[in-house]
Amino acid sequence: MEQENRLKNFADKIISSDKRSVARALSIIENEDSNSEELLKLLYKHTGNAYRIGITGPPGAGKSTLTNNLIKLLKEKGYKIGVIAVDPTSPFTGGALLGDRIRMQDSGLLEDVFIRSMATRGSLGGLSKSVVEACDILDASGKDFIIIETVGVGQSELDIAQTADTTIVVLVPESGDSVQAMKAGLMEIADIFVLNKSDREGADGIVSTIKNIIHLKPPSKDNWIIEVLKTVGSQNKGTEELFNEIMKHKDHLEKTGYLKLKRKDNLNKKIKGLIHNKLEVEFWDRKKLEFLDGKIDDILIKKEDPYSFVEEITGIKN
Amino acid sequence: MEQENRLKNFADKIISSDKRSVARALSIIENEDSNSEELLKLLYKHTGNAYRIGITGPPGAGKSTLTNNLIKLLKEKGYKIGVIAVDPTSPFTGGALLGDRIRMQDSGLLEDVFIRSMATRGSLGGLSKSVVEACDILDASGKDFIIIETVGVGQSELDIAQTADTTIVVLVPESGDSVQAMKAGLMEIADIFVLNKSDREGADGIVSTIKNIIHLKPPSKDNWIIEVLKTVGSQNKGTEELFNEIMKHKDHLEKTGYLKLKRKDNLNKKIKGLIHNKLEVEFWDRKKLEFLDGKIDDILIKKEDPYSFVEEITGIKN
Repeated sequence: MEQENRLKNFADKIISSDKRSVARALSIIENEDSNSEELLKLLYKHTGNAYRIGITGPPGAGKSTLTNNLIKLLKEKGYKIGVIAVDPTSPFTGGALLGDRIRMQDSGLLEDVFIRSMATRGSLGGLSKSVVEACDILDASGKDFIIIETVGVGQSELDIAQTADTTIVVLVPESGDSVQAMKAGLMEIADIFVLNKSDREGADGIVSTIKNIIHLKPPSKDNWIIEVLKTVGSQNKGTEELFNEIMKHKDHLEKTGYLKLKRKDNLNKKIKGLIHNKLEVEFWDRKKLEFLDGKIDDILIKKEDPYSFVEEITGIKN
Repeated sequence: MEQENRLKNFADKIISSDKRSVARALSIIENEDSNSEELLKLLYKHTGNAYRIGITGPPGAGKSTLTNNLIKLLKEKGYKIGVIAVDPTSPFTGGALLGDRIRMQDSGLLEDVFIRSMATRGSLGGLSKSVVEACDILDASGKDFIIIETVGVGQSELDIAQTADTTIVVLVPESGDSVQAMKAGLMEIADIFVLNKSDREGADGIVSTIKNIIHLKPPSKDNWIIEVLKTVGSQNKGTEELFNEIMKHKDHLEKTGYLKLKRKDNLNKKIKGLIHNKLEVEFWDRKKLEFLDGKIDDILIKKEDPYSFVEEITGIKN
């Protein structure tokens, strides 16, 4: 009961936007603390008000600089902003490589801007869950916009980006970049393309290439037309245009009802993921772990096959 | 019974290395056909003889060319080779982007070399499973070496690479590449580093950087010393040295017993993955899907929270 009250107080502080409580909540999420689910339960009805912007693209595209510029602009316009930046962890350096993040610190010091780096620990499936939960925390704390910045280089990272309402894919004019981006699946998830460092040679050629690729795509169900914007992040050029395009997309999603559909789809995935985790945790009791442990060597030396073993331990036939 | 016999005949043909049967088996795997598990069951005791080489690295590092060179060399030495190349799918082009693969076709025409491109369909978790199963098919068909080529840019792709016995990480001398590779987690999984296109400017600098980073790493449990090799794929330079280093690593793993440990670890993961899938398929019967469908709108408008719903549908309390 006391524990329950304490959690309720904690949740109230988050909802009232207390910065230290928000920071602590994000740590609880990231560490997959046993309290995290109860906390999210309390916060859930306060979520759904923030608009979520995903910023993704290959390494070195200048995502952090763009995010920085966007933060400053949103701040000037009086919005409350939260940022989740996803960095892969290097186990031997013992944490996320913070090079990019350091550059973002000047925005981090601004009031009403909350920036958090999250690292991959073990599976990215787990990270994806944590990132969405972290967004929920920031959302419940009253942010107007949440920016999710990920290195868009693998399917799981793209999955993270897709939890956003608007996904921005950032490319640079380096040769081959656009084709490589296609290969990485970036083309499929973009609501807006940004060609950053567009003062470099070859920029217009890449813009044409991207536009051609967009034309190859069947029109989206919601009839949104994907634009290719040019920015120069280091000179803060094109930020206002990017903001306007985001708002245009937001408006489009709201008017067509696709925002609700998109969020419903994400909620569906979230619920299925939660169930998946629960089933797994429930399944692996000590007895089953010991059973696997006792059999694995036999399976390794081909005395038994893994498929029959799985049928046996689950009791589920093919 | 007839079905069982037919499957048994099919498995026998694969074991006797019949190329068309192998191709068909790979399609069955890729399409997650209902027969695939029964087939893998029959083949399982014929697996474990092939040595699996993972080749990974950022887009544009020249992995396909290196793979090509390695195939030719292995072929000259009289080995039977299978190759699984993993390409992300582009839904709107309707298949994997085959640019790189086309260049590999001359190897594909060689006898005793079996090359297959696999694309991501939906989740990469699923792909990872399919790739391992495809390797098992090739393994059972009597290949000596299996090369798994992946774009090493996301955690899931790295997971795929790690199913190999020896993992080669390919980098190029482009500035920033080594740091980006670290960020992508490539540094953690390399048994051998290859600096390809090492005739380009800056090559020696990058080799030093990689070596410095290797030194930062705590020594591996099996005391393997990671080398950084230089290649020029387009001129087929360094291929022999790479082959020798692979064989040195193979020898090391076998002598220290770490090959068995590594494969045991992979088997453990495989079994857990199979169980995970089975539990999920078993859980989602029509009744539960309808139950979710009936509740999702209430959850979306915050009448109920997803965490309580998950407790209800699974019957598993926190």
